[in-house]
Amino acid sequence: MAQMGSAFEILRAYLQDRAAFTDEEFDFIQPMFVPRTLCSGETLQRAGEVAQHAAFITRGCLRSYLIDPKGKEHIVQFAPENWWLADNISLTEGTPSQYFIDSIEDSEVLLIDPTSHEQLVERIPGYADAFRKGLQRRAAAREERIVNTMSKSAEERYLDFLATYPSIVTRVPQWMLASYLGISPETVSRIRKKLSRKSRL
Amino acid sequence: MAQMGSAFEILRAYLQDRAAFTDEEFDFIQPMFVPRTLCSGETLQRAGEVAQHAAFITRGCLRSYLIDPKGKEHIVQFAPENWWLADNISLTEGTPSQYFIDSIEDSEVLLIDPTSHEQLVERIPGYADAFRKGLQRRAAAREERIVNTMSKSAEERYLDFLATYPSIVTRVPQWMLASYLGISPETVSRIRKKLSRKSRL
Repeated sequence: MAQMGSAFEILRAYLQDRAAFTDEEFDFIQPMFVPRTLCSGETLQRAGEVAQHAAFITRGCLRSYLIDPKGKEHIVQFAPENWWLADNISLTEGTPSQYFIDSIEDSEVLLIDPTSHEQLVERIPGYADAFRKGLQRRAAAREERIVNTMSKSAEERYLDFLATYPSIVTRVPQWMLASYLGISPETVSRIRKKLSRKSRL
Repeated sequence: MAQMGSAFEILRAYLQDRAAFTDEEFDFIQPMFVPRTLCSGETLQRAGEVAQHAAFITRGCLRSYLIDPKGKEHIVQFAPENWWLADNISLTEGTPSQYFIDSIEDSEVLLIDPTSHEQLVERIPGYADAFRKGLQRRAAAREERIVNTMSKSAEERYLDFLATYPSIVTRVPQWMLASYLGISPETVSRIRKKLSRKSRL
């Protein structure tokens, strides 16, 4: 329970940054979230299954990825502390997800099921507001990534990754970073060497 | 005014498909939207400006695009009838947009400014609900496009375009389609020929 307390404090601080809440509202919100610990490499969701929860990450780092018909893995998102990870379409429509979600470090997450989430959106205006802002940012970030993939060089996209995920740069293995950027691990290595030479000048 | 009536009827049908509304709510919603006619090629928003409106398209087709530092144009989205087009981040945060928006056919749109939109989200539960569902779909669609760019062939991405935008396949010039898919117009032409040979067999 001490664990849950501290995990919920992280979510509470996150929500307070984005909207106004009363103590009564937090008392209503807290029991809707179920804490879970994940070991490094543990799977939270498999492609083909209907998503059961949205996850708010309070410690560690998760990733979502897809395996294409040729068996190649493509990382869609990393989610370190204070990020959400969810397949919203699968959650709200009950359709199978095409994404795998697993933990790339020992992690702690708070899980919420779609019914509880709907209740919060309907009853707590600040929660609805924070969720809407989060969705807007997410859609905009995805849009930016699409544009970047089309218009920027591999090195520029690597620098975008550093800006988006400053807290996990040294924590993500090189091959995962390559999969996220859609380039080969050798290219990642070459970019890193080049940038480190530049920064020594 | 007859024009506005019919344009609003299209928005009304769109909203009714997504949530429940009373007639009184529609009476409140209608004056928030301002009808505008755009000629083919007319610009609605320029990069560097703060977005002033979200647009709901009732006739014709708009596109949003970005010009990269090398001067190359990248189409982010097409928006035919019944689609929204907006830079939500620029609208809500008042930051300059990086996107151009123009009309690729003679078009009719309904424009709503951010303050009116906020009022509708706060006062009309069905509108808030429809907006939230739209944002979710949009984030998911963008996610899918990222994954497709990384994992699918140009031909598969062309087929995805057909599935996403069935109503505008024959209306979008080949070079715009190429810009949206991130491939050369020659490749689009080659794919089209190949698929038309297949369909004749």
